[in-house]
Amino acid sequence: MRPSGRAPDALRSISFETGVSMHAEGSCLVKFGDTHVLCTATVEEKAPPFLRNTGLGWVTAEYAMLPRATTSRNRRERQGASGRTQEIQRLVGRSLRACLDRPALGERQIVVDCDVLQADGGTRTAAITGGWIALRLAVDAMMAKGTIASDALTGHIAAISCGVTAEGPVLDLDYAEDSTAGADANFVLTGAGGLVEVQASAEGSVFSRAQFDAMLALAEKGVAELVAAQKAALA
Amino acid sequence: MRPSGRAPDALRSISFETGVSMHAEGSCLVKFGDTHVLCTATVEEKAPPFLRNTGLGWVTAEYAMLPRATTSRNRRERQGASGRTQEIQRLVGRSLRACLDRPALGERQIVVDCDVLQADGGTRTAAITGGWIALRLAVDAMMAKGTIASDALTGHIAAISCGVTAEGPVLDLDYAEDSTAGADANFVLTGAGGLVEVQASAEGSVFSRAQFDAMLALAEKGVAELVAAQKAALA
Amino acid sequence: MRPSGRAPDALRSISFETGVSMHAEGSCLVKFGDTHVLCTATVEEKAPPFLRNTGLGWVTAEYAMLPRATTSRNRRERQGASGRTQEIQRLVGRSLRACLDRPALGERQIVVDCDVLQADGGTRTAAITGGWIALRLAVDAMMAKGTIASDALTGHIAAISCGVTAEGPVLDLDYAEDSTAGADANFVLTGAGGLVEVQASAEGSVFSRAQFDAMLALAEKGVAELVAAQKAALA
Amino acid sequence: MRPSGRAPDALRSISFETGVSMHAEGSCLVKFGDTHVLCTATVEEKAPPFLRNTGLGWVTAEYAMLPRATTSRNRRERQGASGRTQEIQRLVGRSLRACLDRPALGERQIVVDCDVLQADGGTRTAAITGGWIALRLAVDAMMAKGTIASDALTGHIAAISCGVTAEGPVLDLDYAEDSTAGADANFVLTGAGGLVEVQASAEGSVFSRAQFDAMLALAEKGVAELVAAQKAALA
Amino acid sequence: MRPSGRAPDALRSISFETGVSMHAEGSCLVKFGDTHVLCTATVEEKAPPFLRNTGLGWVTAEYAMLPRATTSRNRRERQGASGRTQEIQRLVGRSLRACLDRPALGERQIVVDCDVLQADGGTRTAAITGGWIALRLAVDAMMAKGTIASDALTGHIAAISCGVTAEGPVLDLDYAEDSTAGADANFVLTGAGGLVEVQASAEGSVFSRAQFDAMLALAEKGVAELVAAQKAALA
Amino acid sequence: MRPSGRAPDALRSISFETGVSMHAEGSCLVKFGDTHVLCTATVEEKAPPFLRNTGLGWVTAEYAMLPRATTSRNRRERQGASGRTQEIQRLVGRSLRACLDRPALGERQIVVDCDVLQADGGTRTAAITGGWIALRLAVDAMMAKGTIASDALTGHIAAISCGVTAEGPVLDLDYAEDSTAGADANFVLTGAGGLVEVQASAEGSVFSRAQFDAMLALAEKGVAELVAAQKAALA
Repeated sequence: MRPSGRAPDALRSISFETGVSMHAEGSCLVKFGDTHVLCTATVEEKAPPFLRNTGLGWVTAEYAMLPRATTSRNRRERQGASGRTQEIQRLVGRSLRACLDRPALGERQIVVDCDVLQADGGTRTAAITGGWIALRLAVDAMMAKGTIASDALTGHIAAISCGVTAEGPVLDLDYAEDSTAGADANFVLTGAGGLVEVQASAEGSVFSRAQFDAMLALAEKGVAELVAAQKAALA
Repeated sequence: MRPSGRAPDALRSISFETGVSMHAEGSCLVKFGDTHVLCTATVEEKAPPFLRNTGLGWVTAEYAMLPRATTSRNRRERQGASGRTQEIQRLVGRSLRACLDRPALGERQIVVDCDVLQADGGTRTAAITGGWIALRLAVDAMMAKGTIASDALTGHIAAISCGVTAEGPVLDLDYAEDSTAGADANFVLTGAGGLVEVQASAEGSVFSRAQFDAMLALAEKGVAELVAAQKAALA
Repeated sequence: MRPSGRAPDALRSISFETGVSMHAEGSCLVKFGDTHVLCTATVEEKAPPFLRNTGLGWVTAEYAMLPRATTSRNRRERQGASGRTQEIQRLVGRSLRACLDRPALGERQIVVDCDVLQADGGTRTAAITGGWIALRLAVDAMMAKGTIASDALTGHIAAISCGVTAEGPVLDLDYAEDSTAGADANFVLTGAGGLVEVQASAEGSVFSRAQFDAMLALAEKGVAELVAAQKAALA
Repeated sequence: MRPSGRAPDALRSISFETGVSMHAEGSCLVKFGDTHVLCTATVEEKAPPFLRNTGLGWVTAEYAMLPRATTSRNRRERQGASGRTQEIQRLVGRSLRACLDRPALGERQIVVDCDVLQADGGTRTAAITGGWIALRLAVDAMMAKGTIASDALTGHIAAISCGVTAEGPVLDLDYAEDSTAGADANFVLTGAGGLVEVQASAEGSVFSRAQFDAMLALAEKGVAELVAAQKAALA
Repeated sequence: MRPSGRAPDALRSISFETGVSMHAEGSCLVKFGDTHVLCTATVEEKAPPFLRNTGLGWVTAEYAMLPRATTSRNRRERQGASGRTQEIQRLVGRSLRACLDRPALGERQIVVDCDVLQADGGTRTAAITGGWIALRLAVDAMMAKGTIASDALTGHIAAISCGVTAEGPVLDLDYAEDSTAGADANFVLTGAGGLVEVQASAEGSVFSRAQFDAMLALAEKGVAELVAAQKAALA
Repeated sequence: MRPSGRAPDALRSISFETGVSMHAEGSCLVKFGDTHVLCTATVEEKAPPFLRNTGLGWVTAEYAMLPRATTSRNRRERQGASGRTQEIQRLVGRSLRACLDRPALGERQIVVDCDVLQADGGTRTAAITGGWIALRLAVDAMMAKGTIASDALTGHIAAISCGVTAEGPVLDLDYAEDSTAGADANFVLTGAGGLVEVQASAEGSVFSRAQFDAMLALAEKGVAELVAAQKAALA
């Protein structure tokens, strides 16, 4: 029995509140249970230097947690982002770029900021899944204004965690499970089921090929549900 | 006529949503119109080094804005807090300490984090006013648990901005007014009307004694209304 | 009776030694009693980026203390300026800009450096008052050389501290008073008596409207004397 | 045909030169083709603070590249390690800890430094595989000296990269392949074939479940060969 | 003929003003012509960590220039001291430690701060020579108070620069000479003529053994005069 | 008798292995006994800003030690280079520029990186002597490709340390001697015997003119041997 009483293949309660920022071109407050992440997308007319005169666009991401998003207070990262933070924001950026049509965006950059207001496990997967909504809304607004002629996104991106716990392989770990799981994995997939990112780590003991395959199967099911929820939120 | 259509002595719509964090000892989402600040209070059993063995407590504050809290995106302060940020968080900390009974708190520290989710002028006054609610809730919780024997706060603290605009002295500037006002002031007062902080700056031209006095009178009225709203929120 | 034996409305002994730097365009060693600040003004032909192609000039300030300007030694700020330092240098810069005729200066910047050689309270007010002399001398030199056609300064700027001590409201606190005062205020005024900056803070207890008014009246008297002393030093 | 002429499942020429440092407790210069990494293991009698009084040991890793290890010169990371560097050294540390018997090591820390002298793709997998040799030698030396009573390592750790290129899934990418592959993966396994870390990223296009499975099969073959080579080097 | 009209072996006008700081245990404003350095010595009862429980004392030095000490303004070193600054302050510290009786000082540290108020060449030699006066005064004060039982300094330390210019080897370069000399050297000697530090650098062309010997002879003469001036200043 | 059994005027075993980097324009692994330094020269078509439009070239150097190059592990300098590191890399750069024909190089920069793989005293002198080989090879390659028309180097540069130990003045100190010597000196000379840099420091006691002269004589002998070895390595 999982601490939350969920079935092994059950997501937490998922919600997307769109348009939460009066300033951002796209925004979304995503909730995976008690994990709440505020995602905003900012369209910048200037692309990063390495793209000058290529006609290609870029999507980048930043990630942070409010100091008291967690059980005990964390220091603000004012002397440089931690390794963990950098790892996560690199992952979010790479994941979102997997659905980017770079010539269609043109020589611009969209910055997706993911700020964790409250954390209960799975903040990076919530950030990717909600960040995609903010990105989608910003691109929709550009199309509505005629800034770009065709859609700069090729489809959905969503992410979910899995783990091997005492109850076996389970989907969408909350903090109680995450902190005790023997293996921990994050999967990023497209709406069409293509693999974008796979990151699995042993925590304390190794995991087998069969356990890995079970986690991947759970992730495929979970991402399908997340993509359906994204569609409902945008409808 | 003010851009918002408000009377010169009218506050924006004010609200305090308490208990917004599942982890913090006290929390409040304060809104002064479109300015939204998430305030959390964290109780730390360890006081800062300069208080070791004094039996006295401390309250400190941190302040930050999410990158897209503003009209255009601001960089995260990951290479050190800016002068403006440090100035504001020092102001918030000093203001909240003005109602602190340091022996009653005992050798502990309460950290009040004020994170601006959306900015439309007056973020520092909203931070102080909402931060006080978070602090009040954290101290109430300590008393309920018996951690402290008597109340560690001596009363209310609230803050409001004033300015001299083309319409004359006005209360509670939003961003449209703030960016064009000839003088800009922030006042922090206690619930009993005592002065805690006065900060007035000329912006482009000097201001007269009479203009300053008019701003102070507006602030006294505004703070009285804020204190009443604090009481209602805690009732 | 004040620790120094001064009357409540008496300044310390004030002096301005001009031309103390062989390199700077304007310079002044200002003394407010035992507080000694070396002020230099540097004229830079390049304005800051945000003024490019506006034809407008700028004045900025930097502030620092030598490590042993104080009773016990302070660390050099080699890993970033402290919040206090940034707050003071922002105040000095804003104060001096209040007398600046930006089109008359043209697209240039004047940097006023205020380095405290010895501190005994009131370093920021001495920095503003002496910094104005350095600025005045630099602008005079530009006019003498024909770099600018008309005066880029509209008048005098001077600053003084006040506080509420056991002896009541007093003018120009030295360190002994500053460290024990119940309220502490700094006032920046023009030669014509206009208000430029007002900063008052409760220290340990709040202050009343009447106490604030008494401090402001003292400051008006003190600044008038400082302006007279500035005129004498430049005569 | 691969650029190097290798078969899809062929490793580059692999070598381990042990004892290359006169100072380190364990050391190894590992070569995966033209990728050369100098690995040293340092035994510190002091464990990190979070382990105080637990009786448990720790292994951590650092990773860096000499500035001219690469085709064009890279800046030294003297203002903080980059996100990429931190990601790699966290990966190396986690990987090596997967074979650590923490009570057997006791309250000590072993630091494994991996410095890339020359880079041609696969530096992180070479670092893990050669770092394990340095770690093994340091632990052997502790056992020989009687510092620890039983073996602190539970087995071998080795790592290899795979990718999907125009030639299909291939093993052990060199730089020419790495920079053009459509998907890029790193696998860390134990000598017994257990999975320790799986990291796969789409580069420009997504990858399928079948492609992923092919990469994992290649990795299992490659790691078996690396473990055999580790054994030969230590014999 | 030298730019200043001095003979090849002539020092600039040298002066030492002692007791210039009301706070420091020892202080001296040293002038080598237009080079002015404010030196203070601070006695700290706590020695640096590497001396804990040795009973031995330490002298360290810090060096800085005010931003407008030079012809054009230099940035403050607020993001870390430059290589030049660190090199100079290491030199000053080593030089002053050459006359230190470490057991006589006991487990304490004296920090000598050398702040250049105005620069015209030779700031490091002025800093050493004036810093020694500040150190001497601080040690005298400790002996007078009975903090230490016997003298912690074994004699005088003084320093001077030499160079090879178009006029041949010359003593005590000012900025005009320093910036054009073909070789540049700094010598630190004791009052008894012992060598403490020798630093000579070719600037644009190499120098011969004979030129080096001529510079050393000039330095021996110059330091003898400086030591005599130190004695006169302390008499 | 020296710890190593060498005669007072004997160098350690010296070797230069050239072409050790597949990427660098010039490279050399230099060994002075157990001190091993990897030197690479990188040709950059862009000169530093202060040379823009002068037609003159530049050589600069960087220096670092691997963490376990030393007996005990040293921290990586990821928060800024230490004073020692900066001092050494400034010395290496100045030394190599002494043989540079700046117009012949043209408006380019060559960066010489010196990374100490293993340290046993004398790392800076090995870095200069081996760095010169890397620089020589890079310039030879530029001439062979026709990038430059004439030789940009005017001759050899080599460096060696000396010290005064219990055995009297000795040449080329290893770590055992370096850590106990009463005086420590580094000499940089040209192939023609001209002096480039002289740096001598007392360690614990002063040194005499005679001792200094003896060290210089040893250095002249040692550098002659090093230059001969450089010639042999390049033959």
